Amino acid sequence: MDRPVASDTPDSPGFVPRTRFVLVRPSHPGNVGAAARAMKVMGFSELVLVQPRFADVLCQEDTVAMASGAADILVRARIVSTLDEALEGMQMACATAMTPRDFGPPTVAPRSGLPELLGRVTSVAFVFGSERLGLSNEDVQRCNLCLSIPTRPDFGSLNLSQAVQLIAYEWRETLGAYPVVPRTRAVYRAGHDAVAGALEQWREVLVELEFLDPQVPRKLMPRLRQLLLRAEPTVEEIHILRGIARAVKKRP
Amino acid sequence: MDRPVASDTPDSPGFVPRTRFVLVRPSHPGNVGAAARAMKVMGFSELVLVQPRFADVLCQEDTVAMASGAADILVRARIVSTLDEALEGMQMACATAMTPRDFGPPTVAPRSGLPELLGRVTSVAFVFGSERLGLSNEDVQRCNLCLSIPTRPDFGSLNLSQAVQLIAYEWRETLGAYPVVPRTRAVYRAGHDAVAGALEQWREVLVELEFLDPQVPRKLMPRLRQLLLRAEPTVEEIHILRGIARAVKKRP
Repeated sequence: MDRPVASDTPDSPGFVPRTRFVLVRPSHPGNVGAAARAMKVMGFSELVLVQPRFADVLCQEDTVAMASGAADILVRARIVSTLDEALEGMQMACATAMTPRDFGPPTVAPRSGLPELLGRVTSVAFVFGSERLGLSNEDVQRCNLCLSIPTRPDFGSLNLSQAVQLIAYEWRETLGAYPVVPRTRAVYRAGHDAVAGALEQWREVLVELEFLDPQVPRKLMPRLRQLLLRAEPTVEEIHILRGIARAVKKRP
Repeated sequence: MDRPVASDTPDSPGFVPRTRFVLVRPSHPGNVGAAARAMKVMGFSELVLVQPRFADVLCQEDTVAMASGAADILVRARIVSTLDEALEGMQMACATAMTPRDFGPPTVAPRSGLPELLGRVTSVAFVFGSERLGLSNEDVQRCNLCLSIPTRPDFGSLNLSQAVQLIAYEWRETLGAYPVVPRTRAVYRAGHDAVAGALEQWREVLVELEFLDPQVPRKLMPRLRQLLLRAEPTVEEIHILRGIARAVKKRP
């Protein structure tokens, strides 16, 4: 599911570090499901839970409902009893923490901090705490880096699965974003001549209508020209504008 | 709640466009609550619902639970019957759409498209469709721009409140991100002399232990030096390393 690993060393072009999401003591099954979906839309698949509140959380109804099409992530997810187990095989661990700690790794914003991991890590785990208590000091101290999502200073509490979504998104953007698929069909903009032709046709109609006085033109045509240029009309739209001008002219 | 408007014209430095989030036909109360919370952590407060499935959604238990500390957003939210009403007073409307449309506004990724709004819009509405069906073609055609969150090509379906979270985050980052608050206490890195002193103390101990042969040093000390420099030790950590060296030396 992740992009193919192009080479074995992190400084090779196109190298994609192995990526794992770790939820420590999650309480709400819906959040576990939503986290799985959030990971999957960004192309990540490895989920590990440390001491979830419910041992059967991966197959609970709320979990599966919120995972939507990401049930495959749940099926392959692992449950372990300590953060150390969850971090096995990982080189770099990034904590997400909202409350200050007595001592721990340096804090960075995802957008500035994640790009610095590229080219030097072979694998990275993103570690999230429980909904109510976040990560313990002991958990944070096991991590190399502390990620902090920039939020309102007086209301910085993100829902667990929202935090997973933002980090997954930022990491994917860092690795090289997926292409944006146009959601609306490609259009062909009319050329300069077509715009000028339509304007000339309208100028004639406007004179005929006595809306435009050629002796006192009052910058009407330059204004219409600017409007049309700003709208960057399509070929089809120019046809429509010309059609309206013809219809006005024909009017008995 | 939004940052203060510094001036009335969008090209003034520090101008913050009025920002509204519009949910069209949302079905799940939990999503409405989670969307309110997602907006609030990013400093936005104006929420409008168009034809929600439940008329009393703003005071349903799931909504309030998922809003967590963002009940104030729900209290001030408005319910209207058409998208046109929801867009009243707004200059720019950005649709979020996952499926292709026959015709409609141009598609951009939030990260590249949102910065282009700065300096030219006085107000912007972000428009989200229902969980199951998204926005209708008629809804999308009422918008100036179509935002598409880059996702896995074969699994691009974000949960509604996750989409709200990502757009709110990107718009806040565009407007000027909130500062990142260090989650761990500031530390004082040891100076070069302190590192060199600790290394010299360890060199003596290592020679005494016969771990280091001064005749055949095998680059041991340069390696330890590189390790220490890379770790950027604090003053306290240097004290600890020196303490261990002393303890080794004292050992009978």
